[in-house]
Amino acid sequence: MGRLTGGDPSLLRRINSAVVLHALRATDAATLTEITRVTGLSRPTVEGVVEGLIEAGYVVEKAPDESVVRRQGRPARRFRFRAEAGHLLGLDIGSHRVAALLADLDGRVLGAVAKDVDESASADERLERLRTAVAELLRRAGVARDSLRAVGVASPGVVEADGTVRLCAALPEWTGLRLGERLSRSFKCPVLVENDANAAAVAEHWKGAATESDDVVFVLAGLSPGAGSLIGGRLHRGYGGAAGEIGALHLLGREVTPETLLSTTDEPLHPLDEQAVAEVFAQAKKGDQRARAAVERFIQRLVHDVAALALALDPELVVVGGWATGLDGVLEPLRRELARYCLRPPKVTLSLLGEAAVATGALRLALDHVEEQLFAVEGTVTARR
Amino acid sequence: MGRLTGGDPSLLRRINSAVVLHALRATDAATLTEITRVTGLSRPTVEGVVEGLIEAGYVVEKAPDESVVRRQGRPARRFRFRAEAGHLLGLDIGSHRVAALLADLDGRVLGAVAKDVDESASADERLERLRTAVAELLRRAGVARDSLRAVGVASPGVVEADGTVRLCAALPEWTGLRLGERLSRSFKCPVLVENDANAAAVAEHWKGAATESDDVVFVLAGLSPGAGSLIGGRLHRGYGGAAGEIGALHLLGREVTPETLLSTTDEPLHPLDEQAVAEVFAQAKKGDQRARAAVERFIQRLVHDVAALALALDPELVVVGGWATGLDGVLEPLRRELARYCLRPPKVTLSLLGEAAVATGALRLALDHVEEQLFAVEGTVTARR
Repeated sequence: MGRLTGGDPSLLRRINSAVVLHALRATDAATLTEITRVTGLSRPTVEGVVEGLIEAGYVVEKAPDESVVRRQGRPARRFRFRAEAGHLLGLDIGSHRVAALLADLDGRVLGAVAKDVDESASADERLERLRTAVAELLRRAGVARDSLRAVGVASPGVVEADGTVRLCAALPEWTGLRLGERLSRSFKCPVLVENDANAAAVAEHWKGAATESDDVVFVLAGLSPGAGSLIGGRLHRGYGGAAGEIGALHLLGREVTPETLLSTTDEPLHPLDEQAVAEVFAQAKKGDQRARAAVERFIQRLVHDVAALALALDPELVVVGGWATGLDGVLEPLRRELARYCLRPPKVTLSLLGEAAVATGALRLALDHVEEQLFAVEGTVTARR
Repeated sequence: MGRLTGGDPSLLRRINSAVVLHALRATDAATLTEITRVTGLSRPTVEGVVEGLIEAGYVVEKAPDESVVRRQGRPARRFRFRAEAGHLLGLDIGSHRVAALLADLDGRVLGAVAKDVDESASADERLERLRTAVAELLRRAGVARDSLRAVGVASPGVVEADGTVRLCAALPEWTGLRLGERLSRSFKCPVLVENDANAAAVAEHWKGAATESDDVVFVLAGLSPGAGSLIGGRLHRGYGGAAGEIGALHLLGREVTPETLLSTTDEPLHPLDEQAVAEVFAQAKKGDQRARAAVERFIQRLVHDVAALALALDPELVVVGGWATGLDGVLEPLRRELARYCLRPPKVTLSLLGEAAVATGALRLALDHVEEQLFAVEGTVTARR
């Protein structure tokens, strides 16, 4: 990071503020001398900035250890970042479950609540269920609603930049829903809406199976498979937010629906819900031949979807989540088939976060937003490419 | 663009030099006063920089119009960028053809040469053919070899960052070929190797069918279909340079080879070369039923490949090039099927550059390299995201 001179003084103040917060956040506590050394700012600048941050509530003086004071006299004042100065929510809206995560400004998770919801629930019912979960979570953690700084929300379907669900086959009344706007009524802070598979990709990269890779495809295997991709560590949403919506891919040239794919009889599986599918998986585990054949077909479809993604994007790593994480032996055929079809086969691994992936990703997106506000040093000197 | 102060003085000189070149390149010719105004640099700085650029050969004083001199007396000195100060090559290595484009530093094409080459030619023979084409091109244009500033080369297959072909099924002896190194022996300037479909995507974005879009998938329909993608205007190569290598996709779940796909008899098409395929297309145009069925199968496979790319990447625009550009009625089924399978179907159009797309893209990559050297203002003040 370079140093800016001249230009807008309020911009400069904001940058210096971000630089100091950044430094404080990376450490337990620091003296003014230490901050001056780490940031390269002048002592008076650091003093002014720290004073401003204390007023804003983001920094607090740390009380010295009394035993140290007794032995060595009063040490230099130390300051720390107040991660408790604000809070974040990560929300996951699924077909049979809504979930909420609460964290502080360091992204440390303070609590979680999940609620079942009927797959046929209306949009109003589903949102109400989510509000109930949030209220319960805040109450349990003793966190006031106006302490929230950002809320991340993950939903199935194609999500537009303004938080509207452009298209969603998985949830009733969801297509066209102004999800961001609807949820904004419950919060005073920004509400950020993201596709569920995208959120899960972000989560696995943050603290799951993909922390070591910046080029990742996360496949959310389920009723309607979806995928989220990181390219160079950043989410690839696509031109219209529909990247990775590969649900229709298996239909190409083969008129196979999930209902027939997973059926163990000659009739389509009905209702096709996660419980019915879990039952098929369980039977297959017990050795039922028809169930094993159905699971085999499911895996073949997954292989096809993942191969298409891998060929198009050439990721370093594919993380498989959703239903497939409950399947024994899904990795082996995936690796074998990708090695057959890809000129450069990616590594394949299972999700580490499991059911928590989507809400965790939503939380990370809320944290990203707050970090941009608090710590982003716009106007930093960077190379052109 | 902001202004840097302090720091490395040679960096500052280089930046000022780039800023002045940038300004001169955007205009026909400019006076020192005009350059001073446009760049915001001081008059002495501009004078020093222009003097240095004249010495380096990149700038020349433009002789005043004698009629103006007669009428109004001698005007202020005007300077122009010398696009002829260096030259660029764009090379296309195909299975039955090698081609070369020559351009000046403005990217203006000064000449082109193409040579047929046998599909079964060895790597040495193919490279020799390319060298012959380049020598002929330079001789015809009267351009000295040491005037070349960069050479872009496009090749089928997965190309590594160091210019080695990691894998290529289309050309004999091509897998493992250190293509960049081999060609570097013929040139003193940098040689940049890129995948052919990637190069074509860059070309259509530069001066073809995709000048209006930054999120583009270019599909090179041929024996082994490949694709190149631009995301936000930049080439997406993938983690290992294999993004878009969808040649194997149609094999998934359907053991259909191109030989049987395009056969008009019960026997596989042999030899499967472009001539044989062109013959099938011509028969189909004349109304031959079996040829029409074969072309129909070819289009279906193309639809499947394009759909997979569109679902994975969600581009704004798909440009179809290669064989398919010779096919009447390939657009209509593509648009219809993509509308069926994509949640957000992309626009679909045919390549505008046709056979020239790959070499034109290689040329653009050479130009990009030179522009980075001459005009890139590293260390410019830019927003963080």
